[in-house]
Amino acid sequence: MLGYFGPAGTFTQQALLRINDGEEIRPYDTVPQALDAVRAGEVRAALVPIENSVEGGVSATLDNLAGGDPLTIIREVVIPVQFVLCGRPGTTLGDVRKILTHPHAHAQTRGWIAKNLRGATVTEGGSTAAAAAEVANPESRYQAAICAQVAADTYGLEVLADNIADNKRALTRFILVALPGRPGPVTGSDKTTLVAYMHSDRPGALLEILEQFAGRGVNLCRIESRPTKRSLGDYCFSIDAEGHVAEPRMAEALKGLHRVCKKVTFLGSYPRADAVMPRIARGFTDEDFEDAERWFARIMGVEPSS
Amino acid sequence: MLGYFGPAGTFTQQALLRINDGEEIRPYDTVPQALDAVRAGEVRAALVPIENSVEGGVSATLDNLAGGDPLTIIREVVIPVQFVLCGRPGTTLGDVRKILTHPHAHAQTRGWIAKNLRGATVTEGGSTAAAAAEVANPESRYQAAICAQVAADTYGLEVLADNIADNKRALTRFILVALPGRPGPVTGSDKTTLVAYMHSDRPGALLEILEQFAGRGVNLCRIESRPTKRSLGDYCFSIDAEGHVAEPRMAEALKGLHRVCKKVTFLGSYPRADAVMPRIARGFTDEDFEDAERWFARIMGVEPSS
Amino acid sequence: MLGYFGPAGTFTQQALLRINDGEEIRPYDTVPQALDAVRAGEVRAALVPIENSVEGGVSATLDNLAGGDPLTIIREVVIPVQFVLCGRPGTTLGDVRKILTHPHAHAQTRGWIAKNLRGATVTEGGSTAAAAAEVANPESRYQAAICAQVAADTYGLEVLADNIADNKRALTRFILVALPGRPGPVTGSDKTTLVAYMHSDRPGALLEILEQFAGRGVNLCRIESRPTKRSLGDYCFSIDAEGHVAEPRMAEALKGLHRVCKKVTFLGSYPRADAVMPRIARGFTDEDFEDAERWFARIMGVEPSS
Amino acid sequence: MLGYFGPAGTFTQQALLRINDGEEIRPYDTVPQALDAVRAGEVRAALVPIENSVEGGVSATLDNLAGGDPLTIIREVVIPVQFVLCGRPGTTLGDVRKILTHPHAHAQTRGWIAKNLRGATVTEGGSTAAAAAEVANPESRYQAAICAQVAADTYGLEVLADNIADNKRALTRFILVALPGRPGPVTGSDKTTLVAYMHSDRPGALLEILEQFAGRGVNLCRIESRPTKRSLGDYCFSIDAEGHVAEPRMAEALKGLHRVCKKVTFLGSYPRADAVMPRIARGFTDEDFEDAERWFARIMGVEPSS
Repeated sequence: MLGYFGPAGTFTQQALLRINDGEEIRPYDTVPQALDAVRAGEVRAALVPIENSVEGGVSATLDNLAGGDPLTIIREVVIPVQFVLCGRPGTTLGDVRKILTHPHAHAQTRGWIAKNLRGATVTEGGSTAAAAAEVANPESRYQAAICAQVAADTYGLEVLADNIADNKRALTRFILVALPGRPGPVTGSDKTTLVAYMHSDRPGALLEILEQFAGRGVNLCRIESRPTKRSLGDYCFSIDAEGHVAEPRMAEALKGLHRVCKKVTFLGSYPRADAVMPRIARGFTDEDFEDAERWFARIMGVEPSS
Repeated sequence: MLGYFGPAGTFTQQALLRINDGEEIRPYDTVPQALDAVRAGEVRAALVPIENSVEGGVSATLDNLAGGDPLTIIREVVIPVQFVLCGRPGTTLGDVRKILTHPHAHAQTRGWIAKNLRGATVTEGGSTAAAAAEVANPESRYQAAICAQVAADTYGLEVLADNIADNKRALTRFILVALPGRPGPVTGSDKTTLVAYMHSDRPGALLEILEQFAGRGVNLCRIESRPTKRSLGDYCFSIDAEGHVAEPRMAEALKGLHRVCKKVTFLGSYPRADAVMPRIARGFTDEDFEDAERWFARIMGVEPSS
Repeated sequence: MLGYFGPAGTFTQQALLRINDGEEIRPYDTVPQALDAVRAGEVRAALVPIENSVEGGVSATLDNLAGGDPLTIIREVVIPVQFVLCGRPGTTLGDVRKILTHPHAHAQTRGWIAKNLRGATVTEGGSTAAAAAEVANPESRYQAAICAQVAADTYGLEVLADNIADNKRALTRFILVALPGRPGPVTGSDKTTLVAYMHSDRPGALLEILEQFAGRGVNLCRIESRPTKRSLGDYCFSIDAEGHVAEPRMAEALKGLHRVCKKVTFLGSYPRADAVMPRIARGFTDEDFEDAERWFARIMGVEPSS
Repeated sequence: MLGYFGPAGTFTQQALLRINDGEEIRPYDTVPQALDAVRAGEVRAALVPIENSVEGGVSATLDNLAGGDPLTIIREVVIPVQFVLCGRPGTTLGDVRKILTHPHAHAQTRGWIAKNLRGATVTEGGSTAAAAAEVANPESRYQAAICAQVAADTYGLEVLADNIADNKRALTRFILVALPGRPGPVTGSDKTTLVAYMHSDRPGALLEILEQFAGRGVNLCRIESRPTKRSLGDYCFSIDAEGHVAEPRMAEALKGLHRVCKKVTFLGSYPRADAVMPRIARGFTDEDFEDAERWFARIMGVEPSS
């Protein structure tokens, strides 16, 4: 059984279809509920959004992973964000005066609405799927919902306009989260996710964090500050780094991070959705690390010098 | 005339009272509207939230300042976040089954609700003040609102429980924003806010950004990544740095930043609300910079050597 | 009048011929004497060796420039080091049992001697030219000198073997030193020489010195530690950097160096002998610095924003 | 049997007396000969000078260790440098017109001679002990030698003036060198010596070398550039770092160095003569490294998480 951030008819479900091989699925109302279902053993894993190219990191996910009981990311899925405007059968674009949708969907279609539905007002609700469900009700005061195609289909709505996102290249990234366990195999195109908490009495701490990666030839794909909820300006950093924890440059970077940080939460190494292979600079390949170990064993007298 | 992110009865209004010296005030529905009112000359300045110790940066403010026409921060105000649960006169805690509030207020009182109002459902609306207004309506299906004390007062609601935020030390930081102009005077305890856009083809670009500050002895108070809305992983950084643009170490850091970044948006130098004086390391005081300039003038033969 | 580290017949004189345009020349016995002659105004400039590709920096020159009254390097000359073995007319290689030369020449011909003159003993004297002069004396107990071709010519000696340096590509670099004055014009292929003294109580001080250059895109051609003669491990650094003090990246690097160091002695900006043009990374060209200044003037309200 | 850079009567012998526990000793004419005697098994170890607080590194030692067959430093000795002026019995200071000594001794007594023996000329020979031996010869044209007290004693000379070094605090550091073997035990106050060769096509290579140490909390006691004898500006670095190769921060720094350098020659970890204990910053103690390893084992699933 796989959980996901529901309800049915959202982009998360759409993303789940991409990777689900016939397993039963169960929606949860909130990201924390989906993740707690994994912790409780109700589902073997759950799919939740983590990053959106327009809105940025998904706070509910970042904060729950950082602050809750340990979980591990085992996979990522990236899908384009495409919204439709839909109404009850028979509705026309000219009828639309009141629209219901989720705040993120609103934020991403604001330009289209201003241009095409000048007089309409938009109300923000809990999810795009719930908006579609509400609009499907013949007594609804809303004429249209902005949602994913899958939600229009689910609730029998007619598409009045499609592909209405202002940014046609918007993507959302989802992660499949499971209970902690041994990291999966190195594929050569992997990503490692973690949260680093700085010592607050250490100016330049973020610089020090970045140097742990840069000094071992590890590039970062994403770094986001998140408040630790203690005081203004007390941040931790949610980081995606190129590579797998079983690769020596990443292993050394993580250990270095552990030494200079107050705390490090490891959230998993898993294959990249885009399958991009990292370019590894001279001095940082697995072979370079192995050569250095062999050389070191010789100078320690553990192995004979050549 | 001063604008603010309204409606009346929110924390922003409460913060505005702290710094307003009898000037007329006008609420705006959204942060972008408040900021556009400054740009349009409707108000001489507007107060908007920028950072919350629980939720982090306020995206609407960060993104509008970064992406919109130039504005300048001229002042900051920091106030504690204290929520009350309130209902129509006569309501008791036991009556409360449906609560209306804003998503941020919900997020910050979730623990209290779980403990004290187990069966209640919470609906998230557009603002805490609007929630209070709705609850004040005798026909409302909500029995209570979570909002600021000032909103309960405004709408004649009775406080059923006060100081219900889960984090008793939560703070919100507001900024007063005006049209661009000459930066105000150096007070010795100043903050400089800016947005730095990285060249995306430059790995280690964030490290380079941080080095511009660290290399000139400038500490950072806040750094937050924001998506540039172009593609996943394409970020800019919203930064508060200790010091004033008219101090030489900050001036040189900003110029260095301008050289290594794709773009830098300067958003103002202004007095810190906490009046903390920075500790400036040897080599980075104004005198050190002046000495270096004098020495340089001598080696260039512009001034006689001593 | 030009001075040089003599006597006549050394490589320094040979180097001087390269750049002397008919000016009278005067040899000095030691590097300090040649440099003091500049300070005293006896000569308008003096040529002395500063670096040898086999022996490294020339201590007498480095230490005198660093510690003595200010002087400025205005030019550099680089010539190949080629030694000859020579004796009084009639001497054959088989006759040679005792050789006189300078310690540096000895060091650079040790391999050749071991191979070709196995039984010979080598005595080290004050200069290769003096060695040639001594050998020219029919009553000398030495049969041969190792010196420059010009010395053999000067003293009427016969070359028994030429091009005997072990390293056929050895070079010596000389500098022409004058009284301090305005630096010469930027040629685009310049070098700047200086001495940086670290604060000894600052661990990582050398790293900080290097970062002043790296952080402004300035590459180093040479860095040599020199003891400050105070205590073991108390070093200063003699540095050649790519570029001219009148270029903004070098200007800022030097001022930064002045701030983080106990003392900086500027020794001149002058054209490189090899005429190599530096590759300047994005962000560090003169234009990048000028753009940053213009942008900064705008944010300071000194210039109107575009 | 212990070898040393002789002849008898030099500071090296004086230093050897400090650490020799009754073992037979044998002088060698040059540093390379003393070191080759170790390589050939003629002596079990040899004492040679490596650093002088006035003259800097001893090139013959640095270059032979860097370039010759592998040897290991097992101990260091530091002694003050004190010179005497001495002559045949009956000589007075007023008699002295011609002095014989070694160039380094000359360099370190130049000020005293200028002040006290204005008209005297100084000839530089191969060693201070040889100078004493020559002066002891009644037919010598020299009236006095500048040498160590032990040499005056050896050759029956009378001290005309003692403690004549210009720098009264001058020290010389000697190293005891043996064939490679397992490093000795960690004492907590250790030094590690090595030579690092940079990739010449890598600008900023020295910065990268220093970062390997700084990034692991290892301070440097000495860093000296030495030409690699290939071309002008092609340097390697002779480095003494605080700590022992068996300590994890040093181990990781050396392995990092091996990866970013063209070549690293390890020359030994041995107790510091001054017994100074390093101050180790937070994050770099042995415990910090062990904690990081344990944490890493847990996230790899090798050890159960706590």
